[in-house]
Amino acid sequence: MGQFISFEGPEGSGKTTVLKELYERLNTSYDVIMTREPGGIKISESIRALLLDSDDEMDERTEALLFAAARRQHLVEKILPQLNKGGIVLCDRFVDSSLSYQGYAREIGVEEVKAINEFAIESVYPDLTLYFDVPAEVGLNRIKDNNRDSNRLDKEKIEFHHKVSEGYKQLIAEYPERIKVIDATQSLESVIEDAYQVIVNFLNQV
Amino acid sequence: MGQFISFEGPEGSGKTTVLKELYERLNTSYDVIMTREPGGIKISESIRALLLDSDDEMDERTEALLFAAARRQHLVEKILPQLNKGGIVLCDRFVDSSLSYQGYAREIGVEEVKAINEFAIESVYPDLTLYFDVPAEVGLNRIKDNNRDSNRLDKEKIEFHHKVSEGYKQLIAEYPERIKVIDATQSLESVIEDAYQVIVNFLNQV
Repeated sequence: MGQFISFEGPEGSGKTTVLKELYERLNTSYDVIMTREPGGIKISESIRALLLDSDDEMDERTEALLFAAARRQHLVEKILPQLNKGGIVLCDRFVDSSLSYQGYAREIGVEEVKAINEFAIESVYPDLTLYFDVPAEVGLNRIKDNNRDSNRLDKEKIEFHHKVSEGYKQLIAEYPERIKVIDATQSLESVIEDAYQVIVNFLNQV
Repeated sequence: MGQFISFEGPEGSGKTTVLKELYERLNTSYDVIMTREPGGIKISESIRALLLDSDDEMDERTEALLFAAARRQHLVEKILPQLNKGGIVLCDRFVDSSLSYQGYAREIGVEEVKAINEFAIESVYPDLTLYFDVPAEVGLNRIKDNNRDSNRLDKEKIEFHHKVSEGYKQLIAEYPERIKVIDATQSLESVIEDAYQVIVNFLNQV
């Protein structure tokens, strides 16, 4: 089996930018892919389109089940084949996002969201998770400053984002071996360097 | 709260025909609706379209999560409003179908499929379930004789349908108070009469 590394953090944490840079660096020495749900998987893309197209009438539990379904298919079609041939997967958000956003911040319940996600992933948790730690206000301001297309979550009020961070903090406390915290308030160069060191140290140990 | 009655059974058990007839009879005395997933609920219809359109590449767990998502939205938008105003719901298939078909016959595991369905239904199990008992061969021959449009499950081999029946039998043993067995090998008139008596007896007790 290869190594499955997920990138997590609040909006505007810079994790996606860092992930792309780390992919380029690792790609010279390792068999590595970068992906994010739905990741070009046809069924998962269709599920995501359904999530995005729906108006406010979608129940939160329906939404959580659809995210789990998209995750399942993306795992089966894209992540597992790479892991099974011994490769590395860098994945932008995975199960921890659902636990923090839906389970904790939307108050469905972390344990309940975990139950449907465990059905979806069948114990395939990431081997390593990088959490890009940045205060909710800083992250949201970055997005605003970059004038990036805002998605639905960007529009939620700041209290929601505080709750997302609280949800992540609980996961970090629960899985200290798996989840490593990166100070994402630093310069982009420093964040990339820190993240790179954590990954290389991890890969050298396994 | 009203009364939630589900109709279950293998392919060709006649349950849908019986349900329509019972709806007509009950409708003269009760506030009753008949429905089946996706039940005209926009989000659930979209999910079902995705299930039907997909080719063989859909993983069985993805499929089970999508069924659960469609069930959730149908429950929230159609079943619960009727129950909350004290009405009766007659529903063609509900959670027991997923447990028998996906959990038992497709071998995902009854307990695991139950976990995602409990997330979806939040303890809203039917108050009464009628199981239309007919041997798999008899049911499948009825469908063939009627030259009815066959769906994907009709094409599965007979062993699969035997397993579906075994799955149902386990549920009947587990929930004897909730699930009442109707002998569906009888004439249609007798099946309707038996089912009607079970429902009326139930409604007179609550």
